[in-house]
Amino acid sequence: MSSIRNVLFIMCDQLRADHLACYGHPYLATPNIDRLAQRGMRLDRAFVQSGVCGPSRMSFYTGRYVSSHGATWNRVPLAAGEITLGEYLKDAQRRLALVGKTHMMPDHKGLERLRLDGDSELGALLREGHFALVDRYDGHHAEPHGGYANYLRQQGYHSEDPWTDFVISAQDEHGKIVSGWHMRNAHLPARVREADSETAYTADQAIRFIEKQNDEPWVLHLSLVKPHWPYMAPAPYHNRYTFDQCLPVRRHAVEREAPHPVTAAYHQQEECRNFMRDEVIRTVRPVYQGLIAQVDHHMGRLWEALEKLGRWQDTLIIFTADHGDFLGDHWLGEKELFYDTVQRVPYIVYDPSPEADGSRNTASDALIEAIDTVPTILDGLGLPLAEHRLEGRSLLALTRGAAGPWRDAVFSELDYSYREARLLLGRRPDACRGWMVRTAQWKYIHWQGDAAQLFDLTNDPDEFFDLGADPVFESVREAMRARLLEWFCRQRRRTTVSNQDVERGTHQYKKAGVFYGVW
Amino acid sequence: MSSIRNVLFIMCDQLRADHLACYGHPYLATPNIDRLAQRGMRLDRAFVQSGVCGPSRMSFYTGRYVSSHGATWNRVPLAAGEITLGEYLKDAQRRLALVGKTHMMPDHKGLERLRLDGDSELGALLREGHFALVDRYDGHHAEPHGGYANYLRQQGYHSEDPWTDFVISAQDEHGKIVSGWHMRNAHLPARVREADSETAYTADQAIRFIEKQNDEPWVLHLSLVKPHWPYMAPAPYHNRYTFDQCLPVRRHAVEREAPHPVTAAYHQQEECRNFMRDEVIRTVRPVYQGLIAQVDHHMGRLWEALEKLGRWQDTLIIFTADHGDFLGDHWLGEKELFYDTVQRVPYIVYDPSPEADGSRNTASDALIEAIDTVPTILDGLGLPLAEHRLEGRSLLALTRGAAGPWRDAVFSELDYSYREARLLLGRRPDACRGWMVRTAQWKYIHWQGDAAQLFDLTNDPDEFFDLGADPVFESVREAMRARLLEWFCRQRRRTTVSNQDVERGTHQYKKAGVFYGVW
Repeated sequence: MSSIRNVLFIMCDQLRADHLACYGHPYLATPNIDRLAQRGMRLDRAFVQSGVCGPSRMSFYTGRYVSSHGATWNRVPLAAGEITLGEYLKDAQRRLALVGKTHMMPDHKGLERLRLDGDSELGALLREGHFALVDRYDGHHAEPHGGYANYLRQQGYHSEDPWTDFVISAQDEHGKIVSGWHMRNAHLPARVREADSETAYTADQAIRFIEKQNDEPWVLHLSLVKPHWPYMAPAPYHNRYTFDQCLPVRRHAVEREAPHPVTAAYHQQEECRNFMRDEVIRTVRPVYQGLIAQVDHHMGRLWEALEKLGRWQDTLIIFTADHGDFLGDHWLGEKELFYDTVQRVPYIVYDPSPEADGSRNTASDALIEAIDTVPTILDGLGLPLAEHRLEGRSLLALTRGAAGPWRDAVFSELDYSYREARLLLGRRPDACRGWMVRTAQWKYIHWQGDAAQLFDLTNDPDEFFDLGADPVFESVREAMRARLLEWFCRQRRRTTVSNQDVERGTHQYKKAGVFYGVW
Repeated sequence: MSSIRNVLFIMCDQLRADHLACYGHPYLATPNIDRLAQRGMRLDRAFVQSGVCGPSRMSFYTGRYVSSHGATWNRVPLAAGEITLGEYLKDAQRRLALVGKTHMMPDHKGLERLRLDGDSELGALLREGHFALVDRYDGHHAEPHGGYANYLRQQGYHSEDPWTDFVISAQDEHGKIVSGWHMRNAHLPARVREADSETAYTADQAIRFIEKQNDEPWVLHLSLVKPHWPYMAPAPYHNRYTFDQCLPVRRHAVEREAPHPVTAAYHQQEECRNFMRDEVIRTVRPVYQGLIAQVDHHMGRLWEALEKLGRWQDTLIIFTADHGDFLGDHWLGEKELFYDTVQRVPYIVYDPSPEADGSRNTASDALIEAIDTVPTILDGLGLPLAEHRLEGRSLLALTRGAAGPWRDAVFSELDYSYREARLLLGRRPDACRGWMVRTAQWKYIHWQGDAAQLFDLTNDPDEFFDLGADPVFESVREAMRARLLEWFCRQRRRTTVSNQDVERGTHQYKKAGVFYGVW
C-alpha cells in the first residue's frame, strides 16, 4: 500500500533540463536537487505541453493538452468549465495550497456569464484555479500590494514598489541605480539581500506552511518564479559562475541561412535580436546559473525541514519546470517554438512508498508529459482519475516498475497570435498555431499556413538541420502526420459524462421506455 | 440593407433529403415545402455534423463541430460552458422562442458544480440551452405532464399518458389496441385525430406564437418531432402512399459480404436486423412518407399565417432536418454511421431581402454544414459573429451571391460508445469514435481502432463499394487524412478571448510593464 499522505509539487519557472548537475551540467552545482533525484527517480525525457508559461501551466494543472483546455497563450484565461487539480482535491475534501506563481488568468467574461464574478467562495476559487492561496506571487511584474512587497517593506526596503526598486534593481559601477529589465545590468548584484530575495521568501513560505500542518495531511504547490527573467541575482549568486562555466551555445550558421518563416519572424523580435549577440549571452548565462544555484540552496533547506518533520516517509515530491529558456540557443531568446531547449524540462519524482524502492537513484528514458502530473498526484493520494477528462498517465507506474507499454511520442502546441511574429507574418489571430510530435528519434512540427519542420534527433540532436522540405524524409513526415491525427482523435472532448456513466448507459434505451426498431 | 426582423428556424426530425418533391422524390407530394424552395434557395448538398439527434442539434444550436462542443451522443449533455444561439440572441436583447423538440440534456453535474442547479433564471436558461419555451415537446417517449398531454386530455383523450395510448396506438383488425412501438402496426391509423396529432399541435403552437407577436420582432425555432419514429400516422396520412410509391431501397449484396467491423456490428443490432426484412421496409416506408406529407400540409398553414400577417417581407426562414433515416438502405435501420442517407438533409433558406432576389427558385451545390445555421441567423439579424467560437459560415453570402470561395469538404462525427455495437466490438467507452470527410467526389471515414472507409461518390453515388482497403486509392485516402488533420487544426479551441481581444493585445507587453529581452 502507498504510504503517501502529502504532496509537494515544486515548479521552477523557465528552468532548462540541462541546467542541473544531475541532468549533466558539468559546472553548475545543484547538490540538493541531485539528492532528490538520488532518493527518487529522474525522468530524462520529460516535455511540456507548450513552451510558454500560461498554456504549459494550465496543462500541468488540468492534466489536459492545450487544445483540450483552450488556454493557448499567456493572456488566454482558462475557461471556467475546465477542472484543475485543486478542484479534484476539493471534491475529495482535500486542499491544494499555493506558494508562489500560477499564471492563472481569471476567465472574467466566463465568470460574469455564470454570475460568478462577485464575492462568492466559488467565484474566488474559480478565479484562482482552485488553489488555496498561502501566498500567491507571480513575479515578472510589479505586485506592490502583494505579500512579498509587504514583507520587503517590513524588512526596511522603503518603497511603494520594492520589487522594482530593490529586487530587480542594482547599483552600477558609478553608484547609479539601474534596472534588471536591462540585461546589460544582469552581472550586478540585486539591491535585495539574498535572505529577502524572491526564492528565499518563497521557500520560507513553503517551509512555514509545512511546519504549520503538524500531522494534518497536505498538498502544496511550491511554484518558484526563478530562474525566469528579469535576470538579476542577489549576492553571492550574481557572480557565482563565470562564462566559461556555462554550457556552449547551441547554434549553427546553417540555422540563419533559410530559417522556417515562423522561426525567421521570431529572429526579428527584440529578445532574439539581443540574444544573438555574444555580450548578451556572456552577461546573462552566468547569472541564470547563479539563480539556479540559489534555487538549489533553498531546496536544501526545504529537504531539511521535511527531514526534521519526518515528512520524507509520507510525502510524494515532484520537482519540475514549466519550460526552458533559449539564452541564445538557435539564435533565439526567451522561449516558445519547439526546440528541446525549451520543451524539455527536469522532472524528478520522489515516491516514498516501499514499492518505489527499486527505482530510487535511477533514471528513466520514458517519454513524460506535463499532463502526467495531475494523474500522478491523484493516484498517489488514492483518488479516482477522471479518465474522460485527464489525458496524462500516473508516473507511479514508472516509480513502482509497473508501467507496461508506455507512450512513444509527446505533443506540444504553440499559439503565437499575441506575438510580434504574427504581425511580421501578416497572419490573422486564429491562424497562428503549431503542433509538435516528438518521438525518441524524430521531431515533427506542423504549422498552420506554413511548411512543416522535421529534425532527426538521433543524427542531429542539436536540431540544426531542418528536414521539413527534404524529399527523402516524406515518409517520415507522413508517419508523423498520422501520429498527430491519431492524437487529435483521442483527445478528451466528451467532458460531461464519465466513462463509467457511458458503461452504465450502454444499450439501455428500452429501460428508458424507448423501443425503436422493434417489429 | 437587410429587411430581416424575424427568424423562423424550422427543423424536422429524421427527414431524409431525398424525401421531398423539390429534392427529387417522384411520388411524395410536398407542394408547400416546394413553394418555400421556390421563394428561397434550395441547398442540395447540406450535411449534418453527426447522424444522430443530440450531437447534430447541438451543432445546429452552437455553430460548432461535435469535437468542439463535446456532446458526442444523445445522452451526453452539452457542457454548461458552451454558448448556444439563444444566448447569443439574449446578449443582443433578443429571445429565441421554442416550439417543439431540442434534445437539450441539462448538464446537471456541470450546473451543480457552478451552483446553478437551483431555481435561478440563469440555471433554467442553461438547462434549456437558452431557449425560451413556448412549448417544449421532444416526442419519442411519454411526456405525460407536458403541454401536449394536457392538450390531448382537454380534447377528450382520457389517459394518464395519452401519447402512449392514443398518439402512438392504433386499433388492429381484431379491435385490439396495439402499439406504434411495434413497426408491424405502422400501417394502422393512429388513435389520435389528425388535428390533434403531434405535427398539427406543434404547427398550431407556432402559428399562435407568431400571431401573438403582432409587430414585435421574433426568432422562433419550430422543431417538429416527425417523421421520426414511432412510425404511426393519423388518418388520412397512414395510408396516403403505397409501397410502389416509395423510393427503391438503396442496398447491394456486396455490402453484406465483408462489411466494415463497425457496420457489421450495427447490422447485428435489432433495428437493423429488422430493417433487413422486406416486410418491415414495405410497412414502414409508406407511413414515413405519409408523415412527411402531413408535415408539408402544416407548413402550408404556416405559410398562410405568415402571408396574412405580412411576415414574408421581413422573416428569414430556414427549413432543415437533424439527420435522415436508413429505412433499410445499406441493410440498416434508424440512423448513425456516415452514409448520405443519414448525413444529407434538406436545407432551404428563404431570405426576404431584395439582395437575395437573384437566388430565388435556384438551387446551390455548395457544401453546407449544420454549423452554418447560427452564423446565418446572427448575420440575418445584423448581430456580431463570435468568430473565435463559431465554426460555420453565414449562408446569406450564398443567397445574396456574395460568397466568394466556399468550403470544399464537410465533416461529421460519430461516438457509438452507448450503442450495442460497442459491446459487440468489445471496445472501451473512449475508443468508439469515427470522423467523416466528404468532398464532392470522395467520402473518407476515419475510425478509432479500425480501418478507414472510402467511397467514390462520382462512380458509386450509392456508396456500395468500400475502397478503404484498396491499394489503388492510398493517395486519395492520404489526401483525405490530410484534410481531416487540417480540420482538427482549425477547430476553435481558444474560446475565452475573441479575435478582437487578441488583435488588441498583440505585442503589447511593454505597456503592461514587462520588458523582457531588452539590453
